[in-house]
Amino acid sequence: MNREELIEKIRKVPNFPIPGILFYDVTTLFKDAGALQQLSDDLYAMYKDRGITKVVGIESRGFIMGPILATRLNAGFVPIRKPGKLPAETIQQSYNKEYGTDTIEIHKDSLNENDVIVLHDDLLATGGTMEAACELVQKLKPKKVYVNFLIELAELDGRSLFGDDVEVESLITV
Amino acid sequence: MNREELIEKIRKVPNFPIPGILFYDVTTLFKDAGALQQLSDDLYAMYKDRGITKVVGIESRGFIMGPILATRLNAGFVPIRKPGKLPAETIQQSYNKEYGTDTIEIHKDSLNENDVIVLHDDLLATGGTMEAACELVQKLKPKKVYVNFLIELAELDGRSLFGDDVEVESLITV
Repeated sequence: MNREELIEKIRKVPNFPIPGILFYDVTTLFKDAGALQQLSDDLYAMYKDRGITKVVGIESRGFIMGPILATRLNAGFVPIRKPGKLPAETIQQSYNKEYGTDTIEIHKDSLNENDVIVLHDDLLATGGTMEAACELVQKLKPKKVYVNFLIELAELDGRSLFGDDVEVESLITV
Repeated sequence: MNREELIEKIRKVPNFPIPGILFYDVTTLFKDAGALQQLSDDLYAMYKDRGITKVVGIESRGFIMGPILATRLNAGFVPIRKPGKLPAETIQQSYNKEYGTDTIEIHKDSLNENDVIVLHDDLLATGGTMEAACELVQKLKPKKVYVNFLIELAELDGRSLFGDDVEVESLITV
């Protein structure tokens, strides 16, 4: 299954979650066994030679391919969640959204200075959440941070938020 | 890594999310590459000969091992989510909780009459959410439904909620 066939399988939902937005619904990829295997193989091929020790996924759509990639790479999986969901000691990062601010958190003991991590989420739109996730994980001083998205909406240019020290890669660019 | 070693790696957090509850924090299993592989191998061994076509995971901790199991079985992955998160047409199921009611939903076109599914969540406590998830997926008339948990708290006897037509299995019983 090539990239065009994968793109074909993504359901496009107009006016979700708000009027004027064309939503890329990846659940139609995930429910298709062949497409799911292809995504797993393609992500694995992208990161297999980089010494990744942990995949960090952002709640909750980043929890789907993130753990799959972790097991393929023989790495651990670490969740970034909304406040109040993680039971042990956490560190937090707040960021601005269109209306008000949002906060994400990670367990303080989930990463260390020897970790090479890939941060994963399903979609790169404006990139605000992932930018905050990068700042959050940097507080735990991992050796190296890669950033990965399943899908990148190129016209929104979300990748311009990230500095030269962070390598941003997407499996599918639309 | 045997079951006792896996149980040893689960962090036990007293008084979370409310006083009197001893919370089993599985993030300490997931961040450990060896433990994550072991969980993946053990779940695969449990379901490999049952003709599973789709794994259905409950938001959001069921999104971690659910997709891993799906790719191991060469099956698709389908999410059950809180209301308003799934963009296309859904069906819903409400259920009673200690205070008030909760609702979960699934895409209407996510399952069909040829599917053999395993419903997955991380923890079986009282079982209310999984009972609602069973009723929800039955509306889409799959051929067969299995129910799986990573961890079962045996003393709460959540499995008594499920009828003889549903096979409930857990990887780790404590």
